[in-house]
Amino acid sequence: MFAVLELSKTQYFLVYNMFSFVVATMGAAFLYFLLTRRDVSPHHRLAVTMSTLICAIACYHYFRIFGNWKDAFTVKAGVYSQTGEFNEGYRYADWMLTVPLLLSELVLVLKLAKVESRKLITQLVLAAILMIGTGYPGEVATASSSRMVWGIISTIPFLFILYVLFVRIGKSLSGQPAGTKTLFDALRYIIIATWGVYPIAYLFGQPGGFAGLNESTSQVVRQVGYSLADVLAKPAYGLIIIAIAVIKSREERYVVA
Amino acid sequence: MFAVLELSKTQYFLVYNMFSFVVATMGAAFLYFLLTRRDVSPHHRLAVTMSTLICAIACYHYFRIFGNWKDAFTVKAGVYSQTGEFNEGYRYADWMLTVPLLLSELVLVLKLAKVESRKLITQLVLAAILMIGTGYPGEVATASSSRMVWGIISTIPFLFILYVLFVRIGKSLSGQPAGTKTLFDALRYIIIATWGVYPIAYLFGQPGGFAGLNESTSQVVRQVGYSLADVLAKPAYGLIIIAIAVIKSREERYVVA
Repeated sequence: MFAVLELSKTQYFLVYNMFSFVVATMGAAFLYFLLTRRDVSPHHRLAVTMSTLICAIACYHYFRIFGNWKDAFTVKAGVYSQTGEFNEGYRYADWMLTVPLLLSELVLVLKLAKVESRKLITQLVLAAILMIGTGYPGEVATASSSRMVWGIISTIPFLFILYVLFVRIGKSLSGQPAGTKTLFDALRYIIIATWGVYPIAYLFGQPGGFAGLNESTSQVVRQVGYSLADVLAKPAYGLIIIAIAVIKSREERYVVA
Repeated sequence: MFAVLELSKTQYFLVYNMFSFVVATMGAAFLYFLLTRRDVSPHHRLAVTMSTLICAIACYHYFRIFGNWKDAFTVKAGVYSQTGEFNEGYRYADWMLTVPLLLSELVLVLKLAKVESRKLITQLVLAAILMIGTGYPGEVATASSSRMVWGIISTIPFLFILYVLFVRIGKSLSGQPAGTKTLFDALRYIIIATWGVYPIAYLFGQPGGFAGLNESTSQVVRQVGYSLADVLAKPAYGLIIIAIAVIKSREERYVVA
């Protein structure tokens, strides 16, 4: 069973328009990465390919999420009541594919020694699968206590990933070309800013609401939060990765045909 | 609650056909920019890429707008009555993505010094986000007074953008190649002509109608106005940008392979 949310027209359409906006953003980003893959040398093309896949996968999922939102509500006398299930599972399916890709492309663009690179990717991908795989049962649980237990379990691999990204990757930054310093910093900020949003949005899914907001308003905050975080974590993140790859390609004297 | 509009068959189908026309126009323009990207040198390709994305994004939104128009009305005894919500939010989601791109591609095709270019793009993009972000609450407001207040706030960044485009960019025109003078003039006229339409169309959304027209006729004027403005501001504008880029590519002795 789902909680019967009652949203105002403004609330309902804020989420509705946000979802449609993300469909368009992911679609446009997909197209952008597809069209600009030859701006980077063959060496760096796999990272751009990953951004292309990530945005295509997210475009598909937001298309589903948007349709699901439309179908789950019925309007009566200006109030939008939830009369069907709104499935959060799409997000977990999306993350199961996109988070391992996002983490791998970051390691790839660093261009570390092959052995080191492979080891980092293996660790990060396994942690991501664990994080998302244990987040899902918490997300679909109706009891507040199960949500908490799974939420805490899922936080362990989450913190491990942040540790690897900051400490391990931080160390390798001294070896990076001068022009990419600001970009790598921006990447680290985007990771902190957006990855911080996900556990907060998860908390806003508490039955009965969160942070003094009722359940309906909590749901609006949560969906808008997840959507904005996804836009930063996928297209914006991919743009920084491609910018780093372009600078590195130039250093290799790669010329666009 | 939405206002219950009652349209004649002619009015209803004028808007209906206009929306479908724009879907086709944006789709065709998208394809054109996709197919001709190699007519310009790698230097200018980003501007063409932006036109490609703009038209793809607009095609998606007009597809949604068209479907929404169909779903929002019910016909009875030759009168088309609005029985569902018609969501103007699609336009704002569209503009949030396309207006920053439109402004950036104009600066890119000017090929100013890198620092100047970056500064202009940052200012224009921020102003565009402010303009559209403050336009949205006004558009979805039901009270005439909120519409006005948000409309006025949104006009401030709008005027700033026009100032930058005309005064600041006007100054840089003397440094442009001779063959592009007429094209840059055409670009400025298109901006004035189409950007002038948007605030007027916004005014026609006033509850109770505008300029002596009733609410139903105002809505028809408004939707036709927005649609025509979008065709000029996106495909037509993109064609001029690509024409400028082709001339500049030839000056660089770029040869199409």
